Amino acid sequence: MTVDPGEIVKRYLDTVASGNVDDVAALYAEDATLEDPVGGGEVHIGRTAIAGFYQAILGAQISTELLQLRTGGHEAAFLFAITINAGETKMRVEPIETMVFDSEGKITSMKAYWSPADMTML
Amino acid sequence: MTVDPGEIVKRYLDTVASGNVDDVAALYAEDATLEDPVGGGEVHIGRTAIAGFYQAILGAQISTELLQLRTGGHEAAFLFAITINAGETKMRVEPIETMVFDSEGKITSMKAYWSPADMTML
Repeated sequence: MTVDPGEIVKRYLDTVASGNVDDVAALYAEDATLEDPVGGGEVHIGRTAIAGFYQAILGAQISTELLQLRTGGHEAAFLFAITINAGETKMRVEPIETMVFDSEGKITSMKAYWSPADMTML
Repeated sequence: MTVDPGEIVKRYLDTVASGNVDDVAALYAEDATLEDPVGGGEVHIGRTAIAGFYQAILGAQISTELLQLRTGGHEAAFLFAITINAGETKMRVEPIETMVFDSEGKITSMKAYWSPADMTML
């Protein structure tokens, strides 16, 4: 299988916006790790823990927009905007994320770099 | 020592633009690793190898501009522009880089995500 990191990143952002936790978790390898935010002190290990992480976010109405994408080998780094509309609260964050993919194109590692300072209330 | 990843990133970009290989290498820990570009198949290990990597670049006239910066804990991810003016040839690249710092603020890991498609001839 040829792995196209750019295609996987776009599918990831579309799937996050669709709001289906199982579909997002299915993009990850069984033993993947997720750190969001980097430096936050918590790394989610395994697809079940990762599904739990997205469960907490994907209750809201979400849109995503890819702003910058860099790929190399089986890895990608990208800047994107995510807008989260949870009724009263609407906010936009622009994280930089990095991803590593396995030979099946599954995400084995995701790291999201952002801090509250990068968050805008809308 | 308090490590301020954002300050170190700015110092790094200024030092790269100054063109002094020893000064750039001194920002790295003794046993640091550098992968540029990610997926290129080569990882430079140790400050001496890293100095050799910059030697090859810093012969040209260089300017740098920080475009986006995200930090968390002892890590940073950033988008920047580097313009390389080597006489006849002038080009601009906008990589995304990630860095990890030790407790002294030295860079222990640098990864640069970019490909020839991100390069513009000026």
